Amino acid sequence: MTLKTKEEYFESIRRLDLPVYIMGEKVKNVDHPIIWPSINSVGVTYDLAQDPQYEDLATATSHLTGKKINRFTHIHQSIEDLRKKIKLLRLMGQKTASCFQRCAGLDCMNSLSAATYEIDAEFKTEYYQRFLNFLKIIQEEDLVCDAAMTDPKGDRSLPPSQQKDPDLYLHIVKRDGKGIVVRGCKAHQTGAVNSHWVAVMPTTAMKDADKDYAVAFVTPANTKGITYVYGRQSCDTRKMEGGSIDVGNFNFGGQEAYIIFDDVFVPWENVLMCGENKYAGRLVEIFANYHRTSYGGCKIGVADVLIGATSLFTKYNGTDKASHVKDKLVEMVHLAETCYSCALSAQTEGNRHSSGGYLVHGLLANVCKLNITRFPAEISRLSQDLAGAVVGTTPSEKDMAIPGKIGELLKKYLRGADISWEEKVRCIRLIENITMGTGAVAFFTESIHGAGSPQAQRVMISRYSNLDAKQNLARDIAGIKKETDKK
Amino acid sequence: MTLKTKEEYFESIRRLDLPVYIMGEKVKNVDHPIIWPSINSVGVTYDLAQDPQYEDLATATSHLTGKKINRFTHIHQSIEDLRKKIKLLRLMGQKTASCFQRCAGLDCMNSLSAATYEIDAEFKTEYYQRFLNFLKIIQEEDLVCDAAMTDPKGDRSLPPSQQKDPDLYLHIVKRDGKGIVVRGCKAHQTGAVNSHWVAVMPTTAMKDADKDYAVAFVTPANTKGITYVYGRQSCDTRKMEGGSIDVGNFNFGGQEAYIIFDDVFVPWENVLMCGENKYAGRLVEIFANYHRTSYGGCKIGVADVLIGATSLFTKYNGTDKASHVKDKLVEMVHLAETCYSCALSAQTEGNRHSSGGYLVHGLLANVCKLNITRFPAEISRLSQDLAGAVVGTTPSEKDMAIPGKIGELLKKYLRGADISWEEKVRCIRLIENITMGTGAVAFFTESIHGAGSPQAQRVMISRYSNLDAKQNLARDIAGIKKETDKK
Amino acid sequence: MTLKTKEEYFESIRRLDLPVYIMGEKVKNVDHPIIWPSINSVGVTYDLAQDPQYEDLATATSHLTGKKINRFTHIHQSIEDLRKKIKLLRLMGQKTASCFQRCAGLDCMNSLSAATYEIDAEFKTEYYQRFLNFLKIIQEEDLVCDAAMTDPKGDRSLPPSQQKDPDLYLHIVKRDGKGIVVRGCKAHQTGAVNSHWVAVMPTTAMKDADKDYAVAFVTPANTKGITYVYGRQSCDTRKMEGGSIDVGNFNFGGQEAYIIFDDVFVPWENVLMCGENKYAGRLVEIFANYHRTSYGGCKIGVADVLIGATSLFTKYNGTDKASHVKDKLVEMVHLAETCYSCALSAQTEGNRHSSGGYLVHGLLANVCKLNITRFPAEISRLSQDLAGAVVGTTPSEKDMAIPGKIGELLKKYLRGADISWEEKVRCIRLIENITMGTGAVAFFTESIHGAGSPQAQRVMISRYSNLDAKQNLARDIAGIKKETDKK
Amino acid sequence: MTLKTKEEYFESIRRLDLPVYIMGEKVKNVDHPIIWPSINSVGVTYDLAQDPQYEDLATATSHLTGKKINRFTHIHQSIEDLRKKIKLLRLMGQKTASCFQRCAGLDCMNSLSAATYEIDAEFKTEYYQRFLNFLKIIQEEDLVCDAAMTDPKGDRSLPPSQQKDPDLYLHIVKRDGKGIVVRGCKAHQTGAVNSHWVAVMPTTAMKDADKDYAVAFVTPANTKGITYVYGRQSCDTRKMEGGSIDVGNFNFGGQEAYIIFDDVFVPWENVLMCGENKYAGRLVEIFANYHRTSYGGCKIGVADVLIGATSLFTKYNGTDKASHVKDKLVEMVHLAETCYSCALSAQTEGNRHSSGGYLVHGLLANVCKLNITRFPAEISRLSQDLAGAVVGTTPSEKDMAIPGKIGELLKKYLRGADISWEEKVRCIRLIENITMGTGAVAFFTESIHGAGSPQAQRVMISRYSNLDAKQNLARDIAGIKKETDKK
Repeated sequence: MTLKTKEEYFESIRRLDLPVYIMGEKVKNVDHPIIWPSINSVGVTYDLAQDPQYEDLATATSHLTGKKINRFTHIHQSIEDLRKKIKLLRLMGQKTASCFQRCAGLDCMNSLSAATYEIDAEFKTEYYQRFLNFLKIIQEEDLVCDAAMTDPKGDRSLPPSQQKDPDLYLHIVKRDGKGIVVRGCKAHQTGAVNSHWVAVMPTTAMKDADKDYAVAFVTPANTKGITYVYGRQSCDTRKMEGGSIDVGNFNFGGQEAYIIFDDVFVPWENVLMCGENKYAGRLVEIFANYHRTSYGGCKIGVADVLIGATSLFTKYNGTDKASHVKDKLVEMVHLAETCYSCALSAQTEGNRHSSGGYLVHGLLANVCKLNITRFPAEISRLSQDLAGAVVGTTPSEKDMAIPGKIGELLKKYLRGADISWEEKVRCIRLIENITMGTGAVAFFTESIHGAGSPQAQRVMISRYSNLDAKQNLARDIAGIKKETDKK
Repeated sequence: MTLKTKEEYFESIRRLDLPVYIMGEKVKNVDHPIIWPSINSVGVTYDLAQDPQYEDLATATSHLTGKKINRFTHIHQSIEDLRKKIKLLRLMGQKTASCFQRCAGLDCMNSLSAATYEIDAEFKTEYYQRFLNFLKIIQEEDLVCDAAMTDPKGDRSLPPSQQKDPDLYLHIVKRDGKGIVVRGCKAHQTGAVNSHWVAVMPTTAMKDADKDYAVAFVTPANTKGITYVYGRQSCDTRKMEGGSIDVGNFNFGGQEAYIIFDDVFVPWENVLMCGENKYAGRLVEIFANYHRTSYGGCKIGVADVLIGATSLFTKYNGTDKASHVKDKLVEMVHLAETCYSCALSAQTEGNRHSSGGYLVHGLLANVCKLNITRFPAEISRLSQDLAGAVVGTTPSEKDMAIPGKIGELLKKYLRGADISWEEKVRCIRLIENITMGTGAVAFFTESIHGAGSPQAQRVMISRYSNLDAKQNLARDIAGIKKETDKK
Repeated sequence: MTLKTKEEYFESIRRLDLPVYIMGEKVKNVDHPIIWPSINSVGVTYDLAQDPQYEDLATATSHLTGKKINRFTHIHQSIEDLRKKIKLLRLMGQKTASCFQRCAGLDCMNSLSAATYEIDAEFKTEYYQRFLNFLKIIQEEDLVCDAAMTDPKGDRSLPPSQQKDPDLYLHIVKRDGKGIVVRGCKAHQTGAVNSHWVAVMPTTAMKDADKDYAVAFVTPANTKGITYVYGRQSCDTRKMEGGSIDVGNFNFGGQEAYIIFDDVFVPWENVLMCGENKYAGRLVEIFANYHRTSYGGCKIGVADVLIGATSLFTKYNGTDKASHVKDKLVEMVHLAETCYSCALSAQTEGNRHSSGGYLVHGLLANVCKLNITRFPAEISRLSQDLAGAVVGTTPSEKDMAIPGKIGELLKKYLRGADISWEEKVRCIRLIENITMGTGAVAFFTESIHGAGSPQAQRVMISRYSNLDAKQNLARDIAGIKKETDKK
Repeated sequence: MTLKTKEEYFESIRRLDLPVYIMGEKVKNVDHPIIWPSINSVGVTYDLAQDPQYEDLATATSHLTGKKINRFTHIHQSIEDLRKKIKLLRLMGQKTASCFQRCAGLDCMNSLSAATYEIDAEFKTEYYQRFLNFLKIIQEEDLVCDAAMTDPKGDRSLPPSQQKDPDLYLHIVKRDGKGIVVRGCKAHQTGAVNSHWVAVMPTTAMKDADKDYAVAFVTPANTKGITYVYGRQSCDTRKMEGGSIDVGNFNFGGQEAYIIFDDVFVPWENVLMCGENKYAGRLVEIFANYHRTSYGGCKIGVADVLIGATSLFTKYNGTDKASHVKDKLVEMVHLAETCYSCALSAQTEGNRHSSGGYLVHGLLANVCKLNITRFPAEISRLSQDLAGAVVGTTPSEKDMAIPGKIGELLKKYLRGADISWEEKVRCIRLIENITMGTGAVAFFTESIHGAGSPQAQRVMISRYSNLDAKQNLARDIAGIKKETDKK
């Protein structure tokens, strides 16, 4: 059976018994209240695949086996596949109001599929077949794969091999007949502690001097030598308070971790790039393009929830008929749909790769993400504009239980227009969560930096923008002879 | 032969002998230097259809006759048709750096196709067949149809029937067995004086009291009672100066005119709506949606030229390597491609109409146009930023011919980095043309108001935005029970 | 001695023994780790007044007594006083990176001074003398006064007297020879739990039906019947974790509370408005104008810290020489100084009130605040852009102390360019604090809603904008005769 | 008598008999319809000085003679003088809706006053006394001085002395006992053809190799060897059509010209810098700072007219009560007043120069101008948004005079809500003029490039922004020890 149930997934993650530290302590199990919501978010990817209503989006047909698989393990075989991916991501964002983490692995696997094929074509290596072997396991067992790309980088003005400490980028420290040993760290890993496998890729283009850093491989998440240190999020400990209101989003959340690779052995069968530094940048580019469009799905799903919460709150306040309120909601929708449109068109303008998979459109992918680095922040600002000061001043749910008159008075004063305090406060806390709480790590910080910083997108837009062709258009209109003005 | 050559088109327009006034005088023929560039722009739509390189975009297969026709006369039969339309419009923008005017008629014909079909379905009328008869003529003879929608409106706080002067919206003044007589005016008509036919539609939704204003029809452009008064554009008279430089774009341009209908008779066979006021708003909506996405094609084509000219100018100035220059060009490309993405996704998310044609996605169409009301203006500002003060201060091409030393010195001082004065000034004038000259009427004013004002888009986004569904998403995440908070 | 030391201030607040609830529990004393930073912030206002370096800004000469007083208790006697106030607020923001809370009382006292003078002039009341008596106490004892304005409001589409629950706006429930009894709640009160007195004002203009809601008074903070419920802030419980790093700003913070008035008695000598509803809106306007300009001081001080932290972090990352980094820092400075300029000009264009105090310029005050509702959010976005994903993913300071190799490896991987992990993480946490942690309540939420929502500023700009005069300017230039176009 | 009348000014300019070319022809006199409006604009500076209503703003007391002089010839002697300058410029913008050109000379004279004083202090030269001698003539005779700064520059990636053609920056070609001979060109000179004197300054900082380019001097506008070539403006020839409507602003306008210096002799008494290249950049900085704040006065005066025209037009259309219309007018006012606030605060934060004059605040001056490079463009966009398509489509005033029915019908259809066609069209044309006609050269292009391009402002903001001090603020808050993180 290629589709796991959510419960099977939960159990399989528990069984991995990953070594995870959180706030200085080793966690006993992943049911830890700060970790659990992120596992639960991934769980929704399993739920949707079981739900006939969402089957078309949430499942696909494997090009390897012809079986029905979870779309999160699929290599896109058509433009329509690409388009459905974006719609699935938006749906997931709507259902979780969080980063649900499984898309990075999806984008990574599609990138490895194309890049290993290209490396083999040039270097007569056998990475592509190794990749397919790995992919088959993922598809057959419906597994989650983490995509580990970003290194700590140290001094960013220097390349990997010139850092004072050679480990600031992950690299090969040993090669032998059985495989390689790697050392380093991958920072800010989304979905590290809820994945079965980790796929490691280089973080940037590499020159010849950096060959040892041009390494890609897959490895089980509980491989010896791998340790996870959980990153803090704004408001993370609210999840440990026990209530269901102040936490804002009590079911779902994202997670980020540092993955430390302390001399980890990887057998050759799992190695997918090993010194072919020419393809380090190429792999990064393919992955970045895919992933930059993913945000035009998932973040817009979250935006849908935030717009819904904001709109609901104006109803609670009795301001929903005011023209400026309606106008700001229009603006929020407009900004969200602009991002979504960019994501969609990057798919529909995509093209077939020689390996049979489909790539997204490079220029439009970067345009999509650059909008994501701007518009969710503005949507959040508009949300707080409409929600009001309560987002920063509302007492705790525990205050509502103050014995005697004070608790009663507080509830009375927190009431809205024909609405009890609880609905109003739940709505406030959700807005707080997405705009400045744990959800903001996904909706604000990750919208800016996920899949590369804004400047990375600008660099790529510049490369893709083909100014020469545009200059020729201008010459034709203006009557400028090209030979004259050429330098 | 269903594809006219450009020359045949020119001749056919000359033969119409339309009654046109320009700056107080009746024009002798359409070769008038202010009018000609707009006819020449339409001419490019004929050229492209003859060019094998562009055949796929510029022609289509008629669903009526199965013949190869100009895409500007085609009823879209697939999502792919919709997508090709946008690409064709961008190409046309790149080739003309102007409004090329023929897309309004295309969008109008597609709208009439769907709306007449709907009216017939409800009222058992025969408008759809009449429309098809008309369409066949257009397709067979490869004709241009002007889309006349906007009335003068007078006091906009009042509906048509309550205006002091009943003619401020075009209306039926007489009905008899042969047809109807209409009176009124259609303002700001793009492409009025280079079309063979005029299609008239209502400009807004109509209530029962406004039934006489709920009228749609087609009529030959030279029908008795129709007069054209040409609108002024910024810098329009530069076209009359005789040079090829100061005019900025000496081959192409747009045109706008007021069309006065002074008791014009329309036979029943050309009447496509006559009092079915319920469908006035519907027809407007279908047309507006199509046309709002058209701008994400044509204006981006013009933006390509402007970006090219700006980038070229920085080369002439020796500033093209400066990081802030490259960054601003990236921003211009980013804004342009964002609009284009919105246009494309409004097509790919479109759907089949019961009449067999394809409609665009309503929400995304309005999102597309709302971006067009903002970003071309910002692209222009960035262009002027990079071009410099010369856009507003460069002497006339005639000054370069000042006899003796002064003319020579002027040329010397206007020279750039390894470039003669002429290339530099041609480039400046093209930038001036698009950002504040005749081209700005299309790239600035029309980007804001064409296919409806920004507020019209906001109203539609509000209608399409389905806040109720978004509120439910928020309720699910926040744990709010719907029955509790419902008013 | 009219200037308290910080220690005397701390002691005086402790002695008040205010009834405060926080997260469901009554606090034993204000040394509570969540409360203390906000008291410590106010403490800086006392420190600066003792510091000869800041004497000119931090102290003033009382117009009542001629003595040197803390500027936070001063009624502005000149344009120069107004200007120094803004500079003092910016300095305070720089020193605390927080809302320091004492400015609302300052603005309130200046507003009461002018408004009570105006009421007396019309109604022959004696509010102004009562106010001066109160002010003398504040100045002589160097006390902090909280400004309580915002009511819970319930259904905002209804006025106070038409709410289902009459208590949703604070109102008079009893009047007798000795004084009045009031009931209600003031929400989101900045600096409630570190003030000696509370000054209560209406929250909006009032009609005749709302006379009982048109009430203003002062009362000691520990008056019988007053209870404080502390509002939650994003990341508030980090202050309870014991460390000095993860908290971001371990010394300073702001506070917001709900103040419940459960039938509080106010003697006539402390009543400053009682039913003169005509002046409710006037008092709100004067206060709002003052306070809207305060944000152009304090928030810009916080922005200075954030810009400094961001710039420092790029040094740590080795990216400080990159042109896009420098450019974004320029943009941050530009936006901050734009706000500051607006605040300053609202002071220098202010004018003398008939009572002798000085008012700020109404239009420019609202322009200032409207920029504050936009630019700090953009500064935060740019800060996160430059800081990178670490803002959302960095492990806890406790993780650095993980025993054995993991702790050491983590520190190694968190190191920057020639900088230890600790400096880097401290810098990250400060950025997190201001952009999405406790500091964001002040820098994001309060920037939008403090002193009134963005819409409130737009309404006032509309009122102050004198379009008639501008229309006349246009008529003169265009040659339009006024009589002709007048309706 | 130190104050000329407007008529005396007109006569004095006519008497200069300047050699001016326009569109290839030498003009007979400055009453030329394209030139005249720009002279008429300067005329208003004389009118206001005669008008008791504006005396306080438009005149000042000379620090040289103690006489009442036109403020446009004054060296600022106080912060109040600086502030009045900005208010005078706004008033002038309101009265002319144009660039009125005389402020560049004012800013230039104030800059020369300070810079010559500084040069003398270091080099023991006598430039300051020469400057005062010149200034006395200007003040006594109430003359206009043009400020000529910008050179053609050729290849901007190279300094003056490395250009292929040494004349692309103005330079000294000969020195002898009597004076110097200069050659070169000053481009985009605002107010060249209506000035009595020309003051020439270097355009940028100069290194030692560029000493011959480090030259400043004053010279009568009709000095032998000087020729003026008039720059074209969008819609410039409408001024030659004879009507008063289509031209938009029939009384006023700006002007730009290229001034060619073909070996012009300047006697030593008029030379104010000659090889002291160290002070070239300093003079540019002082001038730029003054002039960058001027735009916060003049452009806002023009914005007032544009806002007035737009607001008037919505009345004509019957849309003035719509909430989105009111909201956009608020935004236009907000943006304008933000710029004005920046201009004012750059004055009130200014300081006394050692020469006795007053300088503006460098950082805030650049912040002011950077806003000017953005907000007028947005105000124009909002104006066109509210005005509608008519800005680009309205027929000529000559069309209203078409004989017979068509002329009458056209007038009927151009009528608004209770308003004749003429008021409406006059209003449209004024909006066209400022947003895309001759007025746009001042309001759009010059707002971007006058007093230096946006990038020039960013460079200066970077220099003035003192990030080190801000980093220290952040270190204090975050608990970072400076010695640790210093590189």
